[in-house]
Amino acid sequence: MLALRKQRVVSHPVGAILLLSSVMPDYSIGVDMGGTNLRVAAIATDGQLLEKVTLGVKVAMGRDYVIGEMCDAIQSLTEKYRSSGQFLGAGIGVPGIIDVPAGMMRKSANLPGWQDYPVRDVIERRLGTRIFLDNDANVAALGEKWMGAARDVDNMAMLTLGTGIGGAIILNGKIFYGMSGMAGEFGHVTVEPNGVPCGCGNHGCAERYASATAIVRMAREAAESGVAPGLAKALNADPEFSARSVYNLAIQGDPDAQRIFVRFGEVLGILLADLVNVLDLDMFVIGGGVVSAWDAFAPKMFAELRERSLVYAASAPDDPNARKEGASAQIANYTRKKTIITQALLGSDAGLYGAARVPVSQ
Amino acid sequence: MLALRKQRVVSHPVGAILLLSSVMPDYSIGVDMGGTNLRVAAIATDGQLLEKVTLGVKVAMGRDYVIGEMCDAIQSLTEKYRSSGQFLGAGIGVPGIIDVPAGMMRKSANLPGWQDYPVRDVIERRLGTRIFLDNDANVAALGEKWMGAARDVDNMAMLTLGTGIGGAIILNGKIFYGMSGMAGEFGHVTVEPNGVPCGCGNHGCAERYASATAIVRMAREAAESGVAPGLAKALNADPEFSARSVYNLAIQGDPDAQRIFVRFGEVLGILLADLVNVLDLDMFVIGGGVVSAWDAFAPKMFAELRERSLVYAASAPDDPNARKEGASAQIANYTRKKTIITQALLGSDAGLYGAARVPVSQ
Repeated sequence: MLALRKQRVVSHPVGAILLLSSVMPDYSIGVDMGGTNLRVAAIATDGQLLEKVTLGVKVAMGRDYVIGEMCDAIQSLTEKYRSSGQFLGAGIGVPGIIDVPAGMMRKSANLPGWQDYPVRDVIERRLGTRIFLDNDANVAALGEKWMGAARDVDNMAMLTLGTGIGGAIILNGKIFYGMSGMAGEFGHVTVEPNGVPCGCGNHGCAERYASATAIVRMAREAAESGVAPGLAKALNADPEFSARSVYNLAIQGDPDAQRIFVRFGEVLGILLADLVNVLDLDMFVIGGGVVSAWDAFAPKMFAELRERSLVYAASAPDDPNARKEGASAQIANYTRKKTIITQALLGSDAGLYGAARVPVSQ
Repeated sequence: MLALRKQRVVSHPVGAILLLSSVMPDYSIGVDMGGTNLRVAAIATDGQLLEKVTLGVKVAMGRDYVIGEMCDAIQSLTEKYRSSGQFLGAGIGVPGIIDVPAGMMRKSANLPGWQDYPVRDVIERRLGTRIFLDNDANVAALGEKWMGAARDVDNMAMLTLGTGIGGAIILNGKIFYGMSGMAGEFGHVTVEPNGVPCGCGNHGCAERYASATAIVRMAREAAESGVAPGLAKALNADPEFSARSVYNLAIQGDPDAQRIFVRFGEVLGILLADLVNVLDLDMFVIGGGVVSAWDAFAPKMFAELRERSLVYAASAPDDPNARKEGASAQIANYTRKKTIITQALLGSDAGLYGAARVPVSQ
């Protein structure tokens, strides 16, 4: 009634529509199924966060329990915002390899009971609403595209640095899935042909050097080799020794901890150079927990990128550190645009925004 | 008159249209500007090759001379087929980095006088017809997509193994150019972080190991090291020592020559694994002169690919050599489709077909 009365006093028809939509925004729900908690958010179609709920639901509590809690949270949010506008559905971002058309998880390192289980259909039946299941890296990229760092570009890729390296490609504003939904497996690009073995079967995958897991591995190896006293001391003193511990040592000036982030930056630079050479996208957004160590790894990352990608060097003639000699200088006048490599802006909320965007863009 | 008379006796209207189009096919012209000759072909829109002309015009004869000969050849073909059907324009494939919207070459190793010269506009003005300029790797990919190995897929990439590695990506049937027209620089993907220096500024680029140039370099290095007597003998005896000479030795059983193709296959396998992991395309077509040595490098290439790409392994569960253990087996049931890695079918004509296709698809 209030909306109708307000509408009547606005004489300009466009104003009336705007007012109506601001009073009654359509909305959707995004779900982020992380390893340590379950987050659910109601987000309006204009990007306004209506409400975000964090539940201490661990995936270890079992599939049916997690799905039950997820359904309760979605239901309670939709009941609360029922009068606000039309509910358009829910998107769920999950870690693992997702068969998007089937709405199932095909493989997930941390969610054994979920494999080949019809997650989407089960939740759809229970809630009677449209549910979309997608990979956590894909929804994070959609989130950054919608409301984060990549708002102004239509062609971008996102790298999420965490346990491994999540990857996603967006072309013309939409996720590029590839033939079997597996496009964007950036973490398994080979950066050292005879390097560290990876669970995927390869040796020297990028994520063996440029992830939180890799930082801890490299720190342990340095500590155990007896040549990194600072790391050894921290490792012995801290039962929760993590990538953050290594970063804290690095910013305090420990050279061995710093070297780990230089190696991290080197590998990330090789990977990005490969991706820029292959894809020539407008923007590469780097997210995930480890991105907070940007100052420790980014200088080496950019140095490698400039040296290793003629496409990047060609696109960045105004970069004071860009090489001006050789092939790159000759083609520097070709491109006006610059390849942008930047940090994600939404942090851990990227997945929530992106998951909520899926039902809207379908 | 004959066409009209034939048309009258066909009673079924669809038959009449088919007959009309077979008698009067629209056509376009494709130009392939290679290093050693200039080839021009008139090709009907149904893919029928009407006529192909090879001119002994070397780029060393100078830009204006080459453009003059090119214009004469296009003109003489269009005059000859004027009565056949509508002439739709000409596409020109050139080696180098092309600014497609501007119709100019921005960089080319072998065509110094062409850089930043308005090739397209000059030819358009002289001939009064639509001219399109594109990269030779792009038009080769379009050719294989139209009439070659990739006829049945809409998403593919092509690698042309020659002096370097030419690369092109086709998505939804169209060339994917990237932000600045430089997508598909596969030859400069890093396969050995501390490897052989490349003219692009990087070290260990794929094309330093998997191209005709690389085969000759590796053969020379082996010969000069004194441990490869067969290669040393061939190198001394043959003033025109080439990648083909190394291949001839390899098929005769020379172990050092064979090792070079194994290394070639290893690097190509690493590159393809990276591309499959990043792009998950339906098909990768491998063309260029060196592809005739397929039997010498392909076994190692496929072995590396299976080991290094979880996406490839997942897509190929029916491959008898595919790994069945680990992560790949767990996701093997996800994909029904198989990533196809195959030889190009059109040989050196791919560029002619593709260049002729550009005016038709515009």
